[in-house]
Amino acid sequence: MKELENGKIHLDLQEVKPLAVAALQKAGCNQENAEAVADCIHDAERHGAHSHGLFRMPGYLASLKSGKVNGHANPRLSKSRPAVLAVDGDGGYAPLSHQKLSEPLALMAGEQGVAMAALTNTFHFAALWHEVERLANLGVVALACTAFKPALPPAGGKKPLYGTNPVAFAWPRTGNPPLVFDQASAVMARGEVMIAAREGHELPPGAGIDEKGRPTTDPNKVLKGALLPFGGYKGASIALMVELLAGALIGERMSFEAASADNNDGGPPRGGEFILAIDPADVRSLQSAEGLFEQILSQQGTRLPADGRRNRCSEVARNGIKIPKDLFEKLAV
Amino acid sequence: MKELENGKIHLDLQEVKPLAVAALQKAGCNQENAEAVADCIHDAERHGAHSHGLFRMPGYLASLKSGKVNGHANPRLSKSRPAVLAVDGDGGYAPLSHQKLSEPLALMAGEQGVAMAALTNTFHFAALWHEVERLANLGVVALACTAFKPALPPAGGKKPLYGTNPVAFAWPRTGNPPLVFDQASAVMARGEVMIAAREGHELPPGAGIDEKGRPTTDPNKVLKGALLPFGGYKGASIALMVELLAGALIGERMSFEAASADNNDGGPPRGGEFILAIDPADVRSLQSAEGLFEQILSQQGTRLPADGRRNRCSEVARNGIKIPKDLFEKLAV
Repeated sequence: MKELENGKIHLDLQEVKPLAVAALQKAGCNQENAEAVADCIHDAERHGAHSHGLFRMPGYLASLKSGKVNGHANPRLSKSRPAVLAVDGDGGYAPLSHQKLSEPLALMAGEQGVAMAALTNTFHFAALWHEVERLANLGVVALACTAFKPALPPAGGKKPLYGTNPVAFAWPRTGNPPLVFDQASAVMARGEVMIAAREGHELPPGAGIDEKGRPTTDPNKVLKGALLPFGGYKGASIALMVELLAGALIGERMSFEAASADNNDGGPPRGGEFILAIDPADVRSLQSAEGLFEQILSQQGTRLPADGRRNRCSEVARNGIKIPKDLFEKLAV
Repeated sequence: MKELENGKIHLDLQEVKPLAVAALQKAGCNQENAEAVADCIHDAERHGAHSHGLFRMPGYLASLKSGKVNGHANPRLSKSRPAVLAVDGDGGYAPLSHQKLSEPLALMAGEQGVAMAALTNTFHFAALWHEVERLANLGVVALACTAFKPALPPAGGKKPLYGTNPVAFAWPRTGNPPLVFDQASAVMARGEVMIAAREGHELPPGAGIDEKGRPTTDPNKVLKGALLPFGGYKGASIALMVELLAGALIGERMSFEAASADNNDGGPPRGGEFILAIDPADVRSLQSAEGLFEQILSQQGTRLPADGRRNRCSEVARNGIKIPKDLFEKLAV
């Protein structure tokens, strides 16, 4: 830790996890839950995904302190159907559930060919690439999605109804880390719009609408109106599907239900996650996919999803990270 | 059948299927295969989806006549894993495989909780809502996708690599037809661009690029260049996932492989389809989803996906359809 002249705090990457663990424990997490969340935050910082790193800690801490989230959660797994792993998150943060469900889910996919985890009673405040990449590292193709709070209007509508509803997908590779993408159903994440508002930047056209449903590039107006789905009604279809899979199907709240039940303490609302795992039984499937990846990379200007994030790792490892001093002060215990 | 003054032919809806069956049989289909394709064409016309109706017949007939497609296909089903239904399409058109796999797949999902069909060695030239809607009518949530021939560049690239790669999803409802969406990964379908070229219309900005990768609204230049995915790199991610699921995963050709193996007779290339079915075991899941649908419809200007198509049924039933005379002449036998 070193205070810089510009009022920021420099941290070596190795300092991130202990800092997060200590703050989470002080706010009410037991060690197991604190470490699971902190691993996720470390992983985000390590990949240069700062918006999902320590930046999220105040939200994590607020929901522990308000008593909304159970810091001593003990996720319970049960095979509710031959190919369905029911996971009750016990009211805790999602990362511990992810740690516990990954191997059983991958094994179940190996036995059945395809399997799904229905994760309920949990609080998801991280990116989804962590869990799909972990599954792909266990050898299975993985797809995950989760809802949140209303941010996007349905196709044709003007008022927020669907969450930003990310979908993440990972494909295992031999000799390379998995191919992974993780993308919100919104053109821009709400956090990015908040940063634009703070810094006085305009948004690109098509990112949002104002309270009356009129297109605007003013981030302050978008924050009072709605974000827009990527690709118009097609992105809205994806967001709708996510509400159904991660909400209705598995018996959890959809975004509009989560919002009305939430205490607005700054952390995430209670929700669920749908996670699918498929066993690519035949090694030729993986070999064949490499042919596609070669075709992609043979075109100038391309890269595989996740490679940008991974390319940032060596720089972060070398240079560490910088966070605002007020954020650091909220974490230092 | 009645010839109109404008050179078009008017058909009652009831005339569509017999016309299609006769033409398909003459081109080499046995009755079972001919009826399966014709049912699909009838269903498209019935819903006002003319671009997937009789308009497709010349392509269907061409690939039978060239010998590429097996008009006597006898799809073979086998349970390759407890939750995987392997379907060998026997080199025929996909609709007969869909008819044969739907009940076994829905049953398998009912037993396992989730199941997938890996449909290979088939020729898919129709919309995908037929098969997902059929599955949802059997009570399961369904997701399907298929690749085709290169049309879309990968994110950052300029040359076609992915197919237009549609994804379709259906959710069963009680007392209402299923909620269904079916959308290409491209902003516009290639057929729509061809119609714009023929009729001399400009395309909306963002629909395509020219041979050198420059944005253009000229449909003729887009046909030589590439269509663009919806929502930029996010739509490209969806198209990439479809290549992997409907190609590499199930052991079938991806779009770039399908194109190089195809004889370009005007019909579809050989490919595969990934179909997922999930049993919403708890009736509360379906009830809960109705709450979301109410929320959607409470906003002005919205409708549920597929309702537009379904609303056209009564008009088509009343007024019949009109097709160009030269198309009719190719079909009349």
